Amino acid sequence: MPNEGEDARLVTSEGHQRKRINPLPISSLKTGLCYDVRMRYHATVDAEDMHPEDPRRIYEIYKALCQAGLVDDPEFTGVKRKGDLMHRIDAREVSKEEAMLVHTPAHWDFLDKTQEADLEELQMLTMEGDSVYFNALSFFCSRLSCGGAIETCKAVMSGQVKNAIAVIRPPGHHAEPDQAMGFCLFNNVCVATKVLQRDFPSCKKVMILDWCGSLGNGTQTAFYDDPSVLYMSIHRYQGGNFYPVGPAGNLDYCGTGAAIGMNVNVPWENGGMGDGDYMFAFQQLIMPIALEFNPDLVIVSAGFDAAAGDALGGCYVTPGGYAHMTHMLMSLAGGKVVVCLEGGYNLQSISNSALAVAKVLMGEPPERMHQGNVASKSAVRVVHQCISYQSRFWRSLRSCAPIHATQLDFPEDVIRSYQSSQLSKKHRMFPLAILRDELSPSFENEVIATPEYYEKDTIVLLVHDPPLVTAQPDPHTNRIALHTAFLVDAGSMIVDWAVEKGFGLIDINIPLEITGDDENVYNATLSTEALCLYIWDNYIEPNDFKNVILMSIGQAQSGLTHLLVHRDCRERVRAIAEFLGENNPIKAVSSNIIDEYLPEWYYNHSLIFVSSEHDVWERTRKTKRKFGDLRRSAEAELVDVVRSAMGQVKEYMDEALAEE
Amino acid sequence: MPNEGEDARLVTSEGHQRKRINPLPISSLKTGLCYDVRMRYHATVDAEDMHPEDPRRIYEIYKALCQAGLVDDPEFTGVKRKGDLMHRIDAREVSKEEAMLVHTPAHWDFLDKTQEADLEELQMLTMEGDSVYFNALSFFCSRLSCGGAIETCKAVMSGQVKNAIAVIRPPGHHAEPDQAMGFCLFNNVCVATKVLQRDFPSCKKVMILDWCGSLGNGTQTAFYDDPSVLYMSIHRYQGGNFYPVGPAGNLDYCGTGAAIGMNVNVPWENGGMGDGDYMFAFQQLIMPIALEFNPDLVIVSAGFDAAAGDALGGCYVTPGGYAHMTHMLMSLAGGKVVVCLEGGYNLQSISNSALAVAKVLMGEPPERMHQGNVASKSAVRVVHQCISYQSRFWRSLRSCAPIHATQLDFPEDVIRSYQSSQLSKKHRMFPLAILRDELSPSFENEVIATPEYYEKDTIVLLVHDPPLVTAQPDPHTNRIALHTAFLVDAGSMIVDWAVEKGFGLIDINIPLEITGDDENVYNATLSTEALCLYIWDNYIEPNDFKNVILMSIGQAQSGLTHLLVHRDCRERVRAIAEFLGENNPIKAVSSNIIDEYLPEWYYNHSLIFVSSEHDVWERTRKTKRKFGDLRRSAEAELVDVVRSAMGQVKEYMDEALAEE
Repeated sequence: MPNEGEDARLVTSEGHQRKRINPLPISSLKTGLCYDVRMRYHATVDAEDMHPEDPRRIYEIYKALCQAGLVDDPEFTGVKRKGDLMHRIDAREVSKEEAMLVHTPAHWDFLDKTQEADLEELQMLTMEGDSVYFNALSFFCSRLSCGGAIETCKAVMSGQVKNAIAVIRPPGHHAEPDQAMGFCLFNNVCVATKVLQRDFPSCKKVMILDWCGSLGNGTQTAFYDDPSVLYMSIHRYQGGNFYPVGPAGNLDYCGTGAAIGMNVNVPWENGGMGDGDYMFAFQQLIMPIALEFNPDLVIVSAGFDAAAGDALGGCYVTPGGYAHMTHMLMSLAGGKVVVCLEGGYNLQSISNSALAVAKVLMGEPPERMHQGNVASKSAVRVVHQCISYQSRFWRSLRSCAPIHATQLDFPEDVIRSYQSSQLSKKHRMFPLAILRDELSPSFENEVIATPEYYEKDTIVLLVHDPPLVTAQPDPHTNRIALHTAFLVDAGSMIVDWAVEKGFGLIDINIPLEITGDDENVYNATLSTEALCLYIWDNYIEPNDFKNVILMSIGQAQSGLTHLLVHRDCRERVRAIAEFLGENNPIKAVSSNIIDEYLPEWYYNHSLIFVSSEHDVWERTRKTKRKFGDLRRSAEAELVDVVRSAMGQVKEYMDEALAEE
Repeated sequence: MPNEGEDARLVTSEGHQRKRINPLPISSLKTGLCYDVRMRYHATVDAEDMHPEDPRRIYEIYKALCQAGLVDDPEFTGVKRKGDLMHRIDAREVSKEEAMLVHTPAHWDFLDKTQEADLEELQMLTMEGDSVYFNALSFFCSRLSCGGAIETCKAVMSGQVKNAIAVIRPPGHHAEPDQAMGFCLFNNVCVATKVLQRDFPSCKKVMILDWCGSLGNGTQTAFYDDPSVLYMSIHRYQGGNFYPVGPAGNLDYCGTGAAIGMNVNVPWENGGMGDGDYMFAFQQLIMPIALEFNPDLVIVSAGFDAAAGDALGGCYVTPGGYAHMTHMLMSLAGGKVVVCLEGGYNLQSISNSALAVAKVLMGEPPERMHQGNVASKSAVRVVHQCISYQSRFWRSLRSCAPIHATQLDFPEDVIRSYQSSQLSKKHRMFPLAILRDELSPSFENEVIATPEYYEKDTIVLLVHDPPLVTAQPDPHTNRIALHTAFLVDAGSMIVDWAVEKGFGLIDINIPLEITGDDENVYNATLSTEALCLYIWDNYIEPNDFKNVILMSIGQAQSGLTHLLVHRDCRERVRAIAEFLGENNPIKAVSSNIIDEYLPEWYYNHSLIFVSSEHDVWERTRKTKRKFGDLRRSAEAELVDVVRSAMGQVKEYMDEALAEE
């Protein structure tokens, strides 16, 4: 590309050159449109069967383009107007020799035969095939569709149009080199890519962006070992249970040999993904990789089955969402973008989406996104996994990549042993023996108590999740050096308070996971409950404490509610304080209990501080009293919830004890 | 914005409405250009003084636009051609009442007076001012410049043009409400923003993106407490030492009151930033925030002093870089983008950059970025700090935000105490006493040895950096749960080997930081060196080992090279193996040594494995022998370097010992 400096000099130096220079060489071109009514001939032979890959799909999209005034067709506009704003590109049948660049001769012959097949044979083929149907014109239509994709790409690459959209069917991205499947006969985009690379020296590196709701398995296969083609697909994967079923759509399918890293899968864990999720994937993963790859041509496998309203896709991408993705892609390859229709089955959705895409291709700004661009937790998880995986192959991702673990160890034990050693130093706390087979041996060291706790009037039973380690990793290496790692230990605040007040305290740490053999059988909740009963029965009940105070931090709360339900503690329990983080379930006391007054008692004797981010605050209806006296903390993080509430909790405890 | 569905129905339902619908309402409009030759009258009174804010700046940009054929001016093109491709917007003087929306009456009067000032007074004002100069027409020009910005924004907001560029001077973003500074008299962009918000009900939320190389302090001040204006500035900060000097450009200046989070500073640590750094900031920070804010109008404070070639800015943004940033911004506000010239002093650079921006505004795709989009370490660090800071205010950043620490603890001690307890369990290793005042007390526990090490023939002295903790944080909460945190401990491999061979081993762990009082005085390198000498003198030298093996992991290597230089160990040291990570300096043995043979000996007795990512491999010239026998590991991570080399190291050691 000439730099403007020269550009300008060119003009001034030689006057006669002026006319030769088009100041806006690309934007002065039209956007191309490929549509051929004959592609509607491919249909099911069985009239009853309303197949989702319906001939009306392309017709509805074409109609929407006409009615929006982008193309001029009296059939829809009545009058003949000033003419098309889009440049028409004629489809034509793909030649066998072109198709052979991707497909096998056997595949061609198989489709060829469908032309002569009789009704019975066609029904048989449809039945035997993997989600494909055939009629006598399927072969012809699929050749038109494939040839249409080729001509559309050529029109863009040759500079006849600035960019283009091909409204074609049958779709192609599921078609394997040797097999028709998933409504696809020929792999239109793959064949077009191969032909363009062959015929245009300036078209070496092609990027295929597949935003169709399901993996383009055929495209992935065709270029899996081809470093000249970058295939990126965002699709519903669902642990391999979404079409095309199997592991091929997972993020570890990243190409092979010289093409390692040239296959990028973004496998959504489930349906329901929306604009925010797609924008996040584009900003964090797709565009950085695309800019680093720097393609000569961008082809979009544009299925619209992730569009809001599509039953099969089950996602919520709006026309505005597709418009924004298109706009971002237009910054690549000097604007050479070709959008080829793939799936998408809700006629209204695909028309609206395709129209929005066409307008952006033609220069309209994308619609504003009023619903915001915040990604769902699931999308964030998936995209980060992809970044962390692909960052081996793409330097531009390294700085975004989350941390990978290098070697295993058992830090829960590390921290707990340190924590208890600190507590034994500070308060001379010591471990209590846990002599029960059903309780994991790993619980040794998890239960510690203050010296002579059994001689005190008041005992505090504190049950908590393990402290967290948080740290600021080096953003470039994503490594955490130890001196930047911090222990987030809310429990110590409570221990300090109890000791200061002269209370006894038993501290139960509940590992989130137990390392070692019993890992697979360990269940934090069950263990918490069992442990709390065990401690009550063996270390509290037998001793004659006047007052018992129950406190919990995090999901360990379940231990206390379980205890209240299965032991009659109300005699001696004076007050309960619990702290819950954003993701901790809130347990109630009512479950399987005969005593009808327990919930009321629990409500009157508890103070439960819950993270400001907890879902419970979304609810409109007030929560029942059996959940205790819930208070919304101003803080989001569990440790901050505890810290900010301690003052109030101390007063509450003093009052509770004073009442005696 | 009407959705296409309705749009289409409108047409079909009522024929007569057809003509009323413009299918491409925005892209069918031209791009606006505001330029007024009279803005060149503002100049220094002192003819000798060639000030960088030179009247030719706007002229050169205008000339470039003409010569590229975007606007038609016979002065440059000779012939009158088909007319302007851009829509001309006339500048006019800002009214006092408009200026007062931002500036103080005193400020207006001050500038007003400059009109009557005589030469001497003007020279005085220029001398007294903070980088501003005045002549009799400065007031007039600055009013034109400000009025031009207003008219340009109005033309876009009223739909007269689709977007626009204002080639105006003097610039504005340094101008404070009550003070002219930094070549700026009136704050053009601020005044325009206020006027537009006043006159257009549809213009409530304005985003100002300032990519000028220095902070727009005036703009920051004007809207610091205004939640209706999002100000984002990417600038050279240099610890507050770059103009405008002071802390105001730092990332913690984020707005106040209801406007908290509405001021976003990206403070580059130094010059030399390029396209990759700006693209990274845009993808990771600017665009996510912008999409979440969803502005009604975007104004770019477009200084081009970060452009390659600008001496004051000292950065390397190319015209293509500005084009890509512009393209991204055009996806906002339904395309309503106004680019206002601010700084930029290399006439060639600003012309090329402004032309590239204008072409993208007019619909041309941005140039391809052949130099790739990989950000520098410094940029990554800064942008991540910004994300982590701003993520409190912007939900869309939470999922990208690096981890923040919540509460402090001393995990180095945690891990080391765990590590040594593990080693004492596994190999009955015990701590060696360190009885030297100058060595930090924290070194207790840092030096441990195998039982009866002193009775062995062969002793291994292993000095290493503390193991790293790495983990996969929850990408949504950015918290690390303990059961996902791992200890990366390369040393254990060596300990196991030594014990297995029946060697004695002394293990020295060098904390990267010492927690506690002496934190500020602690220096890892000095301590390493002192500690190695101390161990040699007290635990190795006095004992009669036949063979000594020296090994190091990480930057602790400096301890061994220091030892070799300051003690004559060659009698008994048979072999040396060292492992170095990407960022560990490689120490040589020659420093302050009389013995000329040491380097040679070191080279012949050492095997030094260095991370594949280490800078040393960039060098063309072979490194000197005094650095030892360097081997490039296939691995990048230190722990992998050790793991992959252990086999070779073991053989090497066997041979070295066999020679005796």
